[in-house]
Parts: sequence; C-alpha cells; structure tokens
Amino acid sequence: MPVYNAPLTDMRFILNDVFNADQFWQANEKLAHVDSATAEAILEEMAKFAQNVTLPLNRTGDEEGARWENGDVFTPAGFKEAFRQYAEGGWIGLGADEEWGGQAMPKMLTVLADEMLFATNPSFMLYPLLSVGAGMALSSYASQEQKETYLPKIYSGEWAGTMCLTEPHAGTDLGIIKTKAEPNTDGSYNITGTKIFITGGDNDLAENIIHLVLAKTPDAPAGSRGISLFIVPKYLVNEDGSKGERNAAGPGSIEHKMGIKASATCVMNFDGAKGFLVGKENEGLAAMFVMMNYERLSMGIQGIGASEFAYQNAAQYATDRIQGRSATGAKSPDKAADSILVHGDVRRMLLNVRANNEASRAFAVYVGQQLDITKFSTDAEAVKKANDRVALLTPIAKAYLTDTAFQATLDAQMVFGGHGYIREWGMEQCIRDLRIAQIYEGTNGVQSQDLIGRKTIKCGGAFIAEYISEIRDEVNQLGSELNFIKDATLDAATEVESITQYILEQSKENADYSNGVAVDYLHAVGLLSFSYMFAKIANAASQKDGEFFANKVQLARYFVARILPDLKARLVRIQSSTDLVMGFDEDYFTNQS
Amino acid sequence: MPVYNAPLTDMRFILNDVFNADQFWQANEKLAHVDSATAEAILEEMAKFAQNVTLPLNRTGDEEGARWENGDVFTPAGFKEAFRQYAEGGWIGLGADEEWGGQAMPKMLTVLADEMLFATNPSFMLYPLLSVGAGMALSSYASQEQKETYLPKIYSGEWAGTMCLTEPHAGTDLGIIKTKAEPNTDGSYNITGTKIFITGGDNDLAENIIHLVLAKTPDAPAGSRGISLFIVPKYLVNEDGSKGERNAAGPGSIEHKMGIKASATCVMNFDGAKGFLVGKENEGLAAMFVMMNYERLSMGIQGIGASEFAYQNAAQYATDRIQGRSATGAKSPDKAADSILVHGDVRRMLLNVRANNEASRAFAVYVGQQLDITKFSTDAEAVKKANDRVALLTPIAKAYLTDTAFQATLDAQMVFGGHGYIREWGMEQCIRDLRIAQIYEGTNGVQSQDLIGRKTIKCGGAFIAEYISEIRDEVNQLGSELNFIKDATLDAATEVESITQYILEQSKENADYSNGVAVDYLHAVGLLSFSYMFAKIANAASQKDGEFFANKVQLARYFVARILPDLKARLVRIQSSTDLVMGFDEDYFTNQS
Repeated sequence: MPVYNAPLTDMRFILNDVFNADQFWQANEKLAHVDSATAEAILEEMAKFAQNVTLPLNRTGDEEGARWENGDVFTPAGFKEAFRQYAEGGWIGLGADEEWGGQAMPKMLTVLADEMLFATNPSFMLYPLLSVGAGMALSSYASQEQKETYLPKIYSGEWAGTMCLTEPHAGTDLGIIKTKAEPNTDGSYNITGTKIFITGGDNDLAENIIHLVLAKTPDAPAGSRGISLFIVPKYLVNEDGSKGERNAAGPGSIEHKMGIKASATCVMNFDGAKGFLVGKENEGLAAMFVMMNYERLSMGIQGIGASEFAYQNAAQYATDRIQGRSATGAKSPDKAADSILVHGDVRRMLLNVRANNEASRAFAVYVGQQLDITKFSTDAEAVKKANDRVALLTPIAKAYLTDTAFQATLDAQMVFGGHGYIREWGMEQCIRDLRIAQIYEGTNGVQSQDLIGRKTIKCGGAFIAEYISEIRDEVNQLGSELNFIKDATLDAATEVESITQYILEQSKENADYSNGVAVDYLHAVGLLSFSYMFAKIANAASQKDGEFFANKVQLARYFVARILPDLKARLVRIQSSTDLVMGFDEDYFTNQS
Repeated sequence: MPVYNAPLTDMRFILNDVFNADQFWQANEKLAHVDSATAEAILEEMAKFAQNVTLPLNRTGDEEGARWENGDVFTPAGFKEAFRQYAEGGWIGLGADEEWGGQAMPKMLTVLADEMLFATNPSFMLYPLLSVGAGMALSSYASQEQKETYLPKIYSGEWAGTMCLTEPHAGTDLGIIKTKAEPNTDGSYNITGTKIFITGGDNDLAENIIHLVLAKTPDAPAGSRGISLFIVPKYLVNEDGSKGERNAAGPGSIEHKMGIKASATCVMNFDGAKGFLVGKENEGLAAMFVMMNYERLSMGIQGIGASEFAYQNAAQYATDRIQGRSATGAKSPDKAADSILVHGDVRRMLLNVRANNEASRAFAVYVGQQLDITKFSTDAEAVKKANDRVALLTPIAKAYLTDTAFQATLDAQMVFGGHGYIREWGMEQCIRDLRIAQIYEGTNGVQSQDLIGRKTIKCGGAFIAEYISEIRDEVNQLGSELNFIKDATLDAATEVESITQYILEQSKENADYSNGVAVDYLHAVGLLSFSYMFAKIANAASQKDGEFFANKVQLARYFVARILPDLKARLVRIQSSTDLVMGFDEDYFTNQS
C-alpha cells in the first residue's frame, strides 16, 4: 500500500525559517492569536488525520467510486464517517471567522493543512473544499440573516456547499448561461436550468446541501453583466433554522471520469427550485469570483499534495529496488545488484519532483501570506499591494503549480517502471486524480489568458513590475556564497521584464497575439517565481548548520541547472509570429486532405 | 462516440512524395512486388478494418477488460471475432516472409498499417503484435523444423505468440533472472519460474500460445551471458503438427492497470513446463533483441496512432464548440459565441499535436525504410550503414515518439476542457492506454541510456556523425525559399554534433555523467530528427501546388518557431554538473528531515 508521511519538517522550515511566520503573525493584531506552537499542533493533528483516516480510503474510494441511485448520490464506504470526524475536529472552519464557528487560522497555515488532505485523498478533500468556498462567497456577499442561517451549519459540517456555474454549452464563457431565475412575490426566485460538472452536487455526507447557483433574471442584460447569484438549498430551511421540505434541485446523474472517482461530479437539475438572491441582481459574477479565486489556489495545493505523495512513494521504491550496477563500480557488492538510486536518470526524476515540492510549497505559503495581508492587515497600502500580488499570482498558483505537479507525478511513476502502471502501487491513481486540477476551475490555458490579459496587459504590466521589484530587493540581499541563485534569479527577472515589455508592445499591434503565447508566459513567470522561492529557501538554509540545510542549498543549485533553463525555450516561443498560429484557415484543423 | 478517419492522404504524401517509395521499391529486386497501387490498396483495406472493426471495440474493451477465471484468460466481447477477421485478412503476416504464409510487405508500409490499429484499439493491437514479434525471433534464430512447426500457424492466427522476459525482481536487468531450464534426455528442457507483465500471456483468441521464454540452464555463466531462449507452447505440439497435451505453463493472474485494460497482462507460472531451445544455449538475449527492437519501433507507432486519434477528436471538438469571442471581433456574429478555434491557445495545442503526427509518421517511415534496407538490400555497404542507422534511431523511435505523443494526447485532452476528463469523449482512455508505451519494452529512460551509451559513447559518436552527415547532405539541397527549415536543421545538427562531442569528453572523465543527461540527449536528437523530417516534408511539398502542400510548409514553420526551441533548454541541462545529481547521499531521497 502506498505510504505517506506528512512533510512536517519542510513545512516547519518554510513557515518558521523562510517566512518568519511568528514575527508576521505577532505583528498583526488580528493574527496575534496564532504562533508557531499553535501552528505546529494543528499541522501535527492534520498529519494524523491524513495518514490514518483519509489515506486508507483513497484506493477503496477510487475503486468503489461515488454512485447515483434513484436520484440520490452515495459516497464510497468510509467517507461519511471520515467527513463526520473531519467536521467534528473543526477542520472545515479552520480558516473561517470565529463569528461563524471558525478557527480564524491564517491562509499561510491552512495551505499546509490542505496539502496533506490533497496528498492522501483528493476526492475526499473536494467535499469540504466546496463547503469552504461557498462559505467564503456567503461571508463576503450574503446578508446578515443569510450568514446566520447558513454559515454556522456549513462550517460545522451539518450542511455542505456547492458551486453551480457550468452548463452543458457554457463552461469558460459564463456570459451565455441559460439558467433562469424568475422572481416570486415573496422576494424569492424560481430557478430553472441544468448545471454540469457540479462537484459534490449531491452526497450523503451532510443533511442539507447549499447550492450557490448562477442564473439570469428575466430582464438581465446580455453577457456576464447579467448574471446573479442565488442560494438554492437542497432542503428549504424553516424559520427556526431547521431542515424543511425538499427543494426542486437534485442530481440527474453523475459523470464517469478519468479520476477523482470518489468525488461525485453531478449533473444538477433545477426545476423551478426556490432560490434566494445573494447580494444584488446582476452582480453574481463578482461574488462567485471570491469563491473561484479561493478554489484556484486550492487546485495548486492539490498539485503539491499529489507531487509530495508521488515523491515519497517513488523515493521509497527506488531505494528498495535493486537492479543493474553503478557505472563507477558496485555500490552494494553483497547484493545481486545495486539500488536504482545509483543511476543518474532515476535521481534526475526524483530531484525534479522534490524540487517541485519544496518550491511549490514555499510559493503556496507565500501566496497565502499575501492573502492574509489582504484580509487581516490594517495598512491600506499594504492591502492594495497584496491585492495586486494575489491577482497576479492566483493564475500562477493554479496553473503553474498543477502543470509542474502533473509532470512530477509522471516522473515519479516512471521511477517504478512497469509497476508504476499497476493499480496497487497507487501511482496511476495519483496521476488520474491530479489531471483534473489542470482542467477544472478554469483550465490552465484560461488561467494563462487571465495572467497575460487581465493581470498584465490591462494594467500595462504594473503588477509584474511590482513583483519583480520585490524580487530584486530581496535577492540583492543574499550573501555572495549564494551568487548562483542570486544571479540566476536576477537574470530571470530581467528576462521576464523584457518579455513582458515585448508582449505589451505586440499586443497593441495585434489583438490576437497574446492568446497564443499565454501558456509560455505563465510558465516564464512560474519559473521566475520558483527561482525566487529557492532564493528565499537557500537564504534561510544558509544561515543554519547541518546536512538538512546544506541539502536545501544543493537542491536550489539543482533547480538552477536543470529546471530553470526551460525559461530559454519559453522566451523564444513568446517571440514567434502570431501568423504561425492564426494564419491557418479554420477548416485546416478538421480537413487533413 | 470518438471518431477516427485514417489519415490516408498524409500517408500517401509521405510514401509517395516525401520518400518516393515506388522508386525505392522498384530499385530493389526483393521489393519489386510492391508498388504504390498495392500500398494504396493495403492502406485502404486496413483503414476500413480499423474504422469498422477495432474502433467500435475500443471503449467496450476498456470497460469490460480482460479477465482471469480459474486459470484461463478471456478477452472482452468482440475481440475473438475481430482477431479471427484480422487473421483471415492475412494481416498478421503482412510483413512476414512468403515462405511462412506472409505477404512480404516492406516495413515502410506496415508501419502505416500498424498506426491505424494502434489509433483505434491499442489493447487489441498488442495481441497480433506479440505474435509477429515471436515470429520474427523464430525466423531469425529457430531451426528449420521449429520454423515449419510454428511460423505458419502463428502467421495464420491459429496460434499466438508471447515474449516472457520480466520477472518480479528483474525487469531492465535481465542478467539476474531466476527462471531455470533443466535439460531432459530427449533434448527438451524443463522450465520453472515466474514471469510477470506478459502481454497476452494467456487469451482466448488462438487455440495455442507459443511462449518465448528466457531462462538459465544449470551451468550457465552469471549475468546476461548466461541466458537462453526457449519455445514453451501452452499446448505441446504433436508429431503431425496438431495441438497436443497441455503444458505446465499458464497464467497465475492478470494485472489491474491504468490502461490497455483489454490487453491481458499476465503473471505466468512455468512449473517444469516442457521447453525447446531456440538457437544455442546462452545466446538467448541476442534472439530476444531481434524481437525487442521490432517491438520498440512498434511502441513509437503506438504513439503516432494515439496522437492522431487524439488530434482528430480534439480538432472536431474545437470546431464544434462555441465559446467566447475572437479578440479581433466576432467571427460568427450570428451565433452566441465563436468557435474556440479563434483562440490562439487552442490552435497552439492542436498545432503541437498535428506537427507531432506529421513528423512522427515521416520518421516511422524513414526508420522503416532503413529496416527494409537491412533486410532486402544486397549492397553490403548500404546494409551496414542502415544497420548503424537503425541502431541509433530505434531508441528515438521508441522513446521520443512516445514522449512527444503522450504530451500531444494531453494537449488534445485539454482542448476539451472538462469534457476531456469524462469517459464518453474517449480522450482519457487514449491517455491511459498510451502511457504504457513510455514504460514497457524498456522505459524511455532505459532507451535514453541505450542511445547515449551503446549507440553513442561506445562507438565514439560514429553513428550520430553518419546521421548528421546525411542530414547535412540532404538539407543543403533545399531551395532558398526553404531557408527557414534548412538553417534551423543545420543549426540543430551543429548543436547536436557539439553536444555529442561534449558528452564523449565528459564521459571519459566521469563514468556517472552520461546517465543523468541521457533523456535530454535523446530529446535533442529527437528534435533534430523531427527538424530533418520537416525539411523532407517541406521539400516535397514545395514542389507541388495547392493549399494542402502550402499548409505542410506552414506547419514546418510552426515547428521551427514553437517546438524546436526546446533544444536550447536540453543543451543547457546536458552541460550541467554531474555532482548536482550524484552528490546527494542515497539516504537523502527517503529522509526528508
């Protein structure tokens, strides 16, 4: 059976040594209730839960899958009990406001807790994740009464939440949704339409499910400016807050998917279901974006979890598996063969994965810290700066972290040779389960468009310029023994700065240009970000003694030599002609003769 | 349901225009029975078989899977009938000698026929593929009597073949296999041992299965010089050639895998089974390599098939799916949105896949032609040159073609957004089925070691130097309107030449060096090879008029601008220090604290 040991040592190192979390928390009145001892206790408890509860349900969940029967959805054996235990541990509200029963923990910390659950059982993790996302949207946009009705029950796990956006004909382009919301005289609405790909759309984990549904009112403007957000509970809620009668909202079926099979992905039918407006009419998309940004960072964390899980299992396999001999003479002459760790190519794969884990984890904590500033800081300028940074880095966190993690899981699978393809080793499930993270919550292509368009071209490159300025300020402080990472990061910063300028100019001349180079640009900014993270890691590690810290610096060297060079190829591609992409006639693609 | 239309137009273009196949065939006495009309007829027939017989069984085969029951293996519904039809069409012996019932078709042609079957049903294709591989090994090494006994029945499909190498503890390192072969007084042997990952190890498609088994005789030298090859039939063969009594060789179970679920991957138990030596004792590995090289090229073709299948479905989806608007103004103002082909990023993905298909297909035909020279030419010098070329390019054909194809199927899946993750669209199965091609028949890492070690360092770079010389000679003949691909290919050739020299020097100083850069080197040579293929394609296309040909040239431009730049990153990585890979202690990998 696959193994997983929560990487608490690296998590501690990142929180305490790389980001000086204690200092950050103590300096902020609203976070002064958190310190490293609290953080440590939370991470240790979550590690136990992940290792003992969700890990053992991962393969059985995949094999049994979620199932739809006569209009109800059932999760695989053990999920209900695990969800109960998770809820009772207070985990659903870990990052939520205390007012609604949450623990008000900072994002810097919750990203690490979330990683463990994603590592051990991504299908399971999606259920509470959607509840938390729904909770966030309601916290920001719902009325006081709505908050009081729904939030405490969502955070306690009595009720669950979903996010109903996609329709059969409309995924990325929400402007063309068809679900209708017709106003009733009592202020409620009748919601009618079909939504697809609804994670946890129905399940047996909670006694009620609170759907957040995007729909259009009769007189709504066309396009995305005419979308409203509604609360549509599976069971209506009585005056006293108890569960009332069944609403006309339910799952028509569930999808059969490549992975995350224990997560119920539902087709949801709303047949004149009673719904309640959240915020104002036609302003639903903004509310949904609160939730979507949250989910997007989470998808990056799904990547880290999978990559860490894959690493641990591949490293163990490589250590145990003996085959072939070292090119420099037998390393285990007493055995029939050496461990496959004597082969540089096996190490290359493992080091690629490990470098990904450590840089990604630091990056998630970094973005988490920025989110914490936006939420908890009272310094308006700091909040604005952090908001810009979060805007810029959310697509990186979602898309770059899942792209690199997916490649990492493939590398890890390859370490196993043929065994990696066999179910019992867990690697093939890990890959199938992770693949969705590159696709859902806005495909990584769409994330790249967001980065290059809304977050870069639209602000004239201001966000990336601020980010590069911070990177320069920080790496310039590195000691000369870290010149390898200082220089590499400064070079990468200059290259990204230049290519951004190039993109701004090209975009003015050709509106079609940026779309075709967006993924390469996202990877360029991602590589710079990882280089920045390794600069932070190497800086923190170089101030300590011991092999653990020396290895951190060495891994940063590996990153510079073996991973960062991909930037060169990205830059060349970004400078290629748009005509090579857009010049073909549309019928070229399906006509091969 | 997924679509597939055999890409006959491109196949014709490659055979006739790029490789002047008619001229090549007619110039060789032993191939004079083939001409483009024959080739055309064969490809058209295979296209019908693939589209009408194997395609409809692809998803049902995946869902039903092969199953093991009480010691027998059953293939999914329809496979038996399809195999019968395939055998009766004479397809198993398409490339086999006429003496044994084959059709003696050249490899240049059979690679194209094989591609269609791999595109539509890779699980199915593996059954006859293993028969053909076993047939090849027997043709080269078996006695006349053995050939007469087994070959006609294998090529007619009455019997099937397998290849039994891997053992639980020994995959890549065959020197440490434990299966024993004890000689009997009648000249036969008793074979005892367990083999794993045996494709088609048992099945209900053929009345008998001829296992080719690697085993060690009692006094065999240690390591790979002490391995012998044995024929171990499932049913012993009577004097008159008919099926006799059951041998002690059978499947203990089948594996549960990520993909190719309709292909039975067996654990095979040999309990003192009667076996017959092929060739001489201790020379079994050479015979097995005949079969393995054949399979390795086939795995590359599996990649092309999957990539073509993925392309066609993704291109159709992109054409049909309307969402969002073109950045340069609505292209379908009468519709609610434009087709997603207006987005450069969607085109980028499709063009990556299409470029992969066209270059890979040309490369497979090129390697096929080299194999045909080794088999049919009477010019000893030409044969030697072709043998060197095949030795160099077999790892490229296996590993580079499957690496690029796997990325291509991922790109194609991403075009579908969330629908790509759902079973009914066929993309997720395509990816799961293809993933094994990077792993089996020697992982792509092992192929890279073969390329950099045995095929490059061992001969002092002679094979690659000959290849580069041919490339230079040929692309120097390109007209100036093709300077873009001429220059790009010449530059790539010079870069690969220099990096090879660098590798030769580094290897002398450090025996551990080459292993850690092997995959990057393989990709560098692969990129050069694709550039060479696009030079050939562009050259042939530029001599014709019409949009079809103009688009070929344009796709070559796309390759140079968007795909070839990856070479830059590969070269940097190859020049990085071995110490960054080998410098970590072995216990670093499993110890994270």
